[in-house]
Amino acid sequence: MGSIWGTLFRVTTFGESHGAAVGVVVEGFPPGLRINEAGIQEQLLRRRPGQSSLTSPRREPDRLRILSGVYRGRTLGTPIALVLENKNADSSAYRELTHVYRPSHADYTYAAKYGIRDPRGGGRASARETAARVAAGALAEQFLLDRWGVEIVAWVESVGNVGSRVVSQSVDRPAVDRTPVRCPDLEAAREMEALITGVRKEKDSLGGVVAAVARGVPPGWGDPVFDKLEADLGHALLSIPAAKGFEVGSGFRGTRMRGSEHNDPFFMKQGRVCTRTNYSGGIQGGISNGEPILVRVAFKPVASIFLPQQTIDDEGKEVELLLRGRHDPCVVPRAVPVVEAAMALVLADHALRHFAQCGI
Amino acid sequence: MGSIWGTLFRVTTFGESHGAAVGVVVEGFPPGLRINEAGIQEQLLRRRPGQSSLTSPRREPDRLRILSGVYRGRTLGTPIALVLENKNADSSAYRELTHVYRPSHADYTYAAKYGIRDPRGGGRASARETAARVAAGALAEQFLLDRWGVEIVAWVESVGNVGSRVVSQSVDRPAVDRTPVRCPDLEAAREMEALITGVRKEKDSLGGVVAAVARGVPPGWGDPVFDKLEADLGHALLSIPAAKGFEVGSGFRGTRMRGSEHNDPFFMKQGRVCTRTNYSGGIQGGISNGEPILVRVAFKPVASIFLPQQTIDDEGKEVELLLRGRHDPCVVPRAVPVVEAAMALVLADHALRHFAQCGI
Amino acid sequence: MGSIWGTLFRVTTFGESHGAAVGVVVEGFPPGLRINEAGIQEQLLRRRPGQSSLTSPRREPDRLRILSGVYRGRTLGTPIALVLENKNADSSAYRELTHVYRPSHADYTYAAKYGIRDPRGGGRASARETAARVAAGALAEQFLLDRWGVEIVAWVESVGNVGSRVVSQSVDRPAVDRTPVRCPDLEAAREMEALITGVRKEKDSLGGVVAAVARGVPPGWGDPVFDKLEADLGHALLSIPAAKGFEVGSGFRGTRMRGSEHNDPFFMKQGRVCTRTNYSGGIQGGISNGEPILVRVAFKPVASIFLPQQTIDDEGKEVELLLRGRHDPCVVPRAVPVVEAAMALVLADHALRHFAQCGI
Amino acid sequence: MGSIWGTLFRVTTFGESHGAAVGVVVEGFPPGLRINEAGIQEQLLRRRPGQSSLTSPRREPDRLRILSGVYRGRTLGTPIALVLENKNADSSAYRELTHVYRPSHADYTYAAKYGIRDPRGGGRASARETAARVAAGALAEQFLLDRWGVEIVAWVESVGNVGSRVVSQSVDRPAVDRTPVRCPDLEAAREMEALITGVRKEKDSLGGVVAAVARGVPPGWGDPVFDKLEADLGHALLSIPAAKGFEVGSGFRGTRMRGSEHNDPFFMKQGRVCTRTNYSGGIQGGISNGEPILVRVAFKPVASIFLPQQTIDDEGKEVELLLRGRHDPCVVPRAVPVVEAAMALVLADHALRHFAQCGI
Repeated sequence: MGSIWGTLFRVTTFGESHGAAVGVVVEGFPPGLRINEAGIQEQLLRRRPGQSSLTSPRREPDRLRILSGVYRGRTLGTPIALVLENKNADSSAYRELTHVYRPSHADYTYAAKYGIRDPRGGGRASARETAARVAAGALAEQFLLDRWGVEIVAWVESVGNVGSRVVSQSVDRPAVDRTPVRCPDLEAAREMEALITGVRKEKDSLGGVVAAVARGVPPGWGDPVFDKLEADLGHALLSIPAAKGFEVGSGFRGTRMRGSEHNDPFFMKQGRVCTRTNYSGGIQGGISNGEPILVRVAFKPVASIFLPQQTIDDEGKEVELLLRGRHDPCVVPRAVPVVEAAMALVLADHALRHFAQCGI
Repeated sequence: MGSIWGTLFRVTTFGESHGAAVGVVVEGFPPGLRINEAGIQEQLLRRRPGQSSLTSPRREPDRLRILSGVYRGRTLGTPIALVLENKNADSSAYRELTHVYRPSHADYTYAAKYGIRDPRGGGRASARETAARVAAGALAEQFLLDRWGVEIVAWVESVGNVGSRVVSQSVDRPAVDRTPVRCPDLEAAREMEALITGVRKEKDSLGGVVAAVARGVPPGWGDPVFDKLEADLGHALLSIPAAKGFEVGSGFRGTRMRGSEHNDPFFMKQGRVCTRTNYSGGIQGGISNGEPILVRVAFKPVASIFLPQQTIDDEGKEVELLLRGRHDPCVVPRAVPVVEAAMALVLADHALRHFAQCGI
Repeated sequence: MGSIWGTLFRVTTFGESHGAAVGVVVEGFPPGLRINEAGIQEQLLRRRPGQSSLTSPRREPDRLRILSGVYRGRTLGTPIALVLENKNADSSAYRELTHVYRPSHADYTYAAKYGIRDPRGGGRASARETAARVAAGALAEQFLLDRWGVEIVAWVESVGNVGSRVVSQSVDRPAVDRTPVRCPDLEAAREMEALITGVRKEKDSLGGVVAAVARGVPPGWGDPVFDKLEADLGHALLSIPAAKGFEVGSGFRGTRMRGSEHNDPFFMKQGRVCTRTNYSGGIQGGISNGEPILVRVAFKPVASIFLPQQTIDDEGKEVELLLRGRHDPCVVPRAVPVVEAAMALVLADHALRHFAQCGI
Repeated sequence: MGSIWGTLFRVTTFGESHGAAVGVVVEGFPPGLRINEAGIQEQLLRRRPGQSSLTSPRREPDRLRILSGVYRGRTLGTPIALVLENKNADSSAYRELTHVYRPSHADYTYAAKYGIRDPRGGGRASARETAARVAAGALAEQFLLDRWGVEIVAWVESVGNVGSRVVSQSVDRPAVDRTPVRCPDLEAAREMEALITGVRKEKDSLGGVVAAVARGVPPGWGDPVFDKLEADLGHALLSIPAAKGFEVGSGFRGTRMRGSEHNDPFFMKQGRVCTRTNYSGGIQGGISNGEPILVRVAFKPVASIFLPQQTIDDEGKEVELLLRGRHDPCVVPRAVPVVEAAMALVLADHALRHFAQCGI
């Protein structure tokens, strides 16, 4: 279980890291939309390993194949199946890991849950699975942009201790992609790159924070009680591998403010209801208020490091582990399109949900 | 939409703050379990307003009525309907708010979504709705304790700038309930109380952080990809009114650590797989590893303050708002049982999901 | 499980026959609709026992109580909880049945499934549960009529061997209710009544067929593959207690026709696509085509008879059973509003589903 | 929507008839089961066109490709993606149908719903889609057989007016496959074949009834109220293209019996609860009682005939239609494995559901 997501815009992903393919079926996509296949491919390339010296050298072409749901460039309203073959998988490094539980990986928990696991490249727990989400998310983005003009932009806010300053109202993807580290604050980006390069040499790894904004979401999306927009965004973003924390609007910092300071006063601007501040992060009572939706996601340092580690094997024997293979020292630059995809999926689903109940 | 939650342990809540009743239907509850009605009632009393000088004086008896699903004290396996009548609702203070959008409340977003709203006490957006979750969560806790020995404890970790130190391995509910502020660090608790009392006098409000632990969860609960245990916990906890952030294990702090430091080394202890540290927060690859599950939730300062505020009415006219009525200056002490309930619901659902797929 | 139904128009029912109450929560109902409470009550009265000499004498007032989701007569878009207290339950007749498995009842299967059961009045398996569906269905009907002008009418087509002739294009509820047996063919109705009266005297019971039509459903409702409109209608109608068969359009009779005879030729009428015959029953490829939707449901003879029966108890001992209590000799007249409710729920759900995906 | 099915054993299908591929993702499959790929392939071959002179000559190799979820022949517990490329699609015959609505096909309803359709081979509405279900159903069957010894057998009970006599307690697949018409009553089979051959020559088509039995289902599967086992079976079987009716146990015939005749008396046999008759069809109160589960499905005559037909095009103009292409004169022999697959999916899902709630 766990590989199906959504109420109306429903996504089913499949695939192990070193199996035949990863893929996704998008169900419930509205009919008649002209699909920009190159746009999907572009987001896949932004997620792909081997983009720069900062990332893993696995070189997947990630050539998307659309198996169904699109006819003469337009969506049919039927399920859209997208498949990416696994071409560049190198399972040799994993042979010796067949019986070892790597620390802070999913080896032990999968074994405990299923009694069987595919040890090659992390199997289903591999971040390769996120390629499928990125493909589905890119479809969702095209729908959101086409129908509502919604724009989603994510960027690296911090790597380790290196923070940055970014203006969420105006940041765009070209600014984000100006550096391989995907931080639009260029000075901070340089520091982050230096930090990553250094830590890679030390055979260690780093974490960081990805921030994101969705601009143009109309008021009224999201549902009360359990399916608040921030709860569904949190769910989607916390399901990205290595995510350990989530904030909307003021987040944890907001807990140290007074109500008089934190409340966002309403006012009218060109006939539209606006708020003077946006500590709410664009969501009130679980429903969008028309302001930009602001979120942040914490990613832990990559678990795959090249330093010796103490661990156990599947018989409980203590072993020393020295990893080989291809791993990013810091995952956050490649997490940027994954965060965008997750937001797009949540917003597309809530767009349909809203119109189902309130649009007629 | 949004009022149904869960895959197998399914919860449907209903009710407006000043309507006839709030309630919940729990579907999928295993048969044959002896229900401790007093235990449910106790959690409701911990959530109830009017417990101390720190909380709102609305005095709901919150007398639980079980309408179905229990026969001679045991569950039948059929839906369990729990109802709480609204007895002490005082709608008079809301008459003047019928057309005003209170800042950082859900008045505007509900109006934008539905075109109609119940202005009395926040209607469906009221925190009174959480009473239904607490009742359902208390049922879930009884199931988890009876079958698995799982224990869930939440506490107030910080109020405004006042933090605390609590040992998550051993903290229990009596320790939490020693002070009305529900912080088991007694020194910190005194500071928090003083802070709340002071801010109440200033007609302002405070936020804070609630931490929680689930001990005794066996390895193997949780699902890969979209329904990772931390994602579902994040979803449930972020759906609590006023929640703005969520962390599991190392959270945002973990982003500033190196992999060599953050990885949790495995070792064997009394024939059981354990980790020496628990930065993972008891979850790896979305699946429990047998260690305590550790989470934190950020709550913003209460939006209802008694200072004058600038806002607009539903015709877009600027108005000055001066709230009357009954409101907590700080919601976190009463959020403690709500956090426990949300965790219990997620864990009970994943317990059933795990046994459905892997238990046979 | 099994007590929640629907994708967008979601219904959760609860309640045992002799418990405190039966009820239903309707989630996803569109906001702003003026609710006709008397209309719901009327359908409940049509389902109620004790209406005539043909039905069981249990005299439930079935006074509906709306606990939430309606404010000043209009729906809020939040869950609508409807409750019917059980007032006239007489459990005395069931004391001796605590350990006996009544033939063709659910006593044994509930015991086998749950290991526990409420023996009073059939517990959750009682047809009293359908009162909740009728209430929810009446709400759905009001939505369908208000927004789309959809009209649903069911009637008794046969009782035992007595058939009837009814014109589905024009039949209405007043015509159906002209006789207590709810067959609008008055001659057939008289025969049916005589048959029922005779069989009741023989302490035996009868089955029959209920037919139904939905007129005014626009083209386009229903979904391909698994959620075809006829599949969802079949699901809803076959979930009514005692249902053993379902037909749409030509049904089993159609299997004996040739394609050239069965195909419904298209033609235009006043700018609208129509078919000259309607063997399809208003559905093609799982999607409504604008013609009347025609279904039939087979109900087995009532399992509760007053003749001695051989059976076993819960220890496997053979016993002779002689039922007492209050039971209808033929359930079909009271099944009429239940069939209407089930159709209304399916159509309302598919209306919302259609507009979610294709309406924007 | 409509292409995802199931609560725990969840199936997502995709693919248009003349698109790149059809396929299915099976989610929730238990881990550790040894998969018999040849067994899946065999059911696909039984469904495949071009098997005999009775069926359409489209010659798809239907070579199954497993993209995920299986490692070294065993299931991983992760999604199993199965893909069948479309190799032998011949779209030429459909060019002239781009704007015509074929009678009793889904052309008009798809156009009405989606505003766009793939006219080649019926697109998503093609029976080719059922290949995906058969693949998923074959997996479900292997699970049911391996864990519970459940056996499912379907056969052709009637074609047009030609009926048959078959003993459901003992019929097996070799007996069914003895004739191309898949009726195990050999005399009836001969008549059916003669009828089909004759009607093919007349360029017309036939319908028929498929009957099926599931033997070895333990007592306790199925859920009360909405998800009764017969309701879910009805749903699955009525979602097969061309299905117009469904019966469980006594079906419509049962409506003409008395209760005293229809009730199935309980007795003990070798320590097991049994019933002397099985008019219930193995299900009581929506839950299996351990007796064979008996169902029947009505299939209308094939809509594609080679006689001239009056219809309209998508501008409402009347046209005469003369179909070309490859079509079966009678679909029921090829429907046999589809019916088996649908039953297997429902039973596998309910097996998991039962153990989730009641098995622990």
